[in-house]
Amino acid sequence: MLLPEVLRNVDSLKNQVGTWKQVGKTIGVVPTMGALHDGHLSLVRASLTEADVTVVTIFVNPTQFSPTEDLDSYPQTLESDLDKLSDVGNVWVFAPAVTEIYPADFSTSILAPAVSEPLEGEHRPNHFGGVATVVLKLFNLTEANFAFFGQKDFQQQRVVQQMVRDLNVPIKIRVCPIVREPDGLALSSRNVYLSSDEREIALSLSRTLNWAVGQILSGQRDGYELMVEMRQRLIDAGVTRVDYAAVADPHSLATMETIQLPVVLLLAATVGTTRLIDNEVVA
Amino acid sequence: MLLPEVLRNVDSLKNQVGTWKQVGKTIGVVPTMGALHDGHLSLVRASLTEADVTVVTIFVNPTQFSPTEDLDSYPQTLESDLDKLSDVGNVWVFAPAVTEIYPADFSTSILAPAVSEPLEGEHRPNHFGGVATVVLKLFNLTEANFAFFGQKDFQQQRVVQQMVRDLNVPIKIRVCPIVREPDGLALSSRNVYLSSDEREIALSLSRTLNWAVGQILSGQRDGYELMVEMRQRLIDAGVTRVDYAAVADPHSLATMETIQLPVVLLLAATVGTTRLIDNEVVA
Repeated sequence: MLLPEVLRNVDSLKNQVGTWKQVGKTIGVVPTMGALHDGHLSLVRASLTEADVTVVTIFVNPTQFSPTEDLDSYPQTLESDLDKLSDVGNVWVFAPAVTEIYPADFSTSILAPAVSEPLEGEHRPNHFGGVATVVLKLFNLTEANFAFFGQKDFQQQRVVQQMVRDLNVPIKIRVCPIVREPDGLALSSRNVYLSSDEREIALSLSRTLNWAVGQILSGQRDGYELMVEMRQRLIDAGVTRVDYAAVADPHSLATMETIQLPVVLLLAATVGTTRLIDNEVVA
Repeated sequence: MLLPEVLRNVDSLKNQVGTWKQVGKTIGVVPTMGALHDGHLSLVRASLTEADVTVVTIFVNPTQFSPTEDLDSYPQTLESDLDKLSDVGNVWVFAPAVTEIYPADFSTSILAPAVSEPLEGEHRPNHFGGVATVVLKLFNLTEANFAFFGQKDFQQQRVVQQMVRDLNVPIKIRVCPIVREPDGLALSSRNVYLSSDEREIALSLSRTLNWAVGQILSGQRDGYELMVEMRQRLIDAGVTRVDYAAVADPHSLATMETIQLPVVLLLAATVGTTRLIDNEVVA
């Protein structure tokens, strides 16, 4: 298939969106930071199925990284991203420079909703404000009818859904299931950082989730006990640090002392120097 | 003419917007807090001229008032507002309850741009955050192509324009000239608070602006001198307090030490217990 057309600036995207709107085409947007894997591609497929036109945005958003994080080393692989997209179907790519998204006197931002505060919010203080702001900009730029997010970033989709609800953004959010390697490892652009030993340790996240799901299905209702046990399993498997091992309400993300379904289990742990997250919902 | 149709909740507005969008109608929105006067009606006329459908929103937004301000006494005159609108033309009114705009778990907001910080921002700390958030919600709810604001609230239109630019909101902002009484008093919903003595003192705002415009046209280039003189003229006329008398850049709203055109002159003063603002641009 032909490589997708790549739009590099805001004006060319807006012109293109105008032509689609004029003929009544529906638009799907898949916001990504590039380094595309099969998880991203599943979102692209969902958009191709639901919308007339699909825009994949590729933008490593600096405002969602903290100074100690991996902004400078984050994988940038545009050529192979375009190859992968061309195999999936006919999409447009919006891959702007940072100055297109944040011009010199840029100064408005989104104060992310309360659901951004626990979990990731405690470990990545400005992360969700940066995510919410860039995502709203991408929604507005593409005037998309549908946006596609992965369940892998569970809290992110909650933040985005809450923002869309609170600000009445006229877009429908679709959340697609986590895509995993055959051995259970959730796909992530950061998996490339893992050595083969670390990759083995990283499997403890999905294994711990599977074990915990089993515990709940077998009647475990003590949320605190389950959190302590999940954390211990990760440590025993050799992770370097556990940021959280949580049993939470899937809507509010508040910790659940007594488990009532639906519930979401969320893990964040560092393996070597690579921070990984994973989650499972029990409905 | 028939009274306008009044939509009371978000869902009925969204349904109505959907029917307009489906047939390709352009939408103009005129955000107001009601207590409509000829200034508002000039915005409605501008919208009727430019857009296929006009939605006038009437919502006294609590989040843009500080605890010491006049939220509870702010004039609410829906019946006469509807009468006035029916004289102007065929519009729709969106007049929601507070819980429609801010449901129980509402928690996302806009961190207003830097242009919100001086002037009003120094005297009404959370004002523009509240304005920006509700205005963005109204833009999203109406999916309007055009929004109409008065130059009377000069800083407000700058905040809104900057937000629209920064967040790439797909809407065009139109700013309409200040409408004044024959004697110069800028129309304001708060003018009803003025006693006849206070109303006389209130004329000092427009008169001071006229005088200052004359000074600039006669060659005055010392911004600080002009600011001191404007403040003194308001005090001499009997205003109770001057919040600011500023000579500023119309884009950044930064104070101008040496006057270069274009320039905006901005006044905020309290007469009795009524806070009034006014401004003039010299281009």
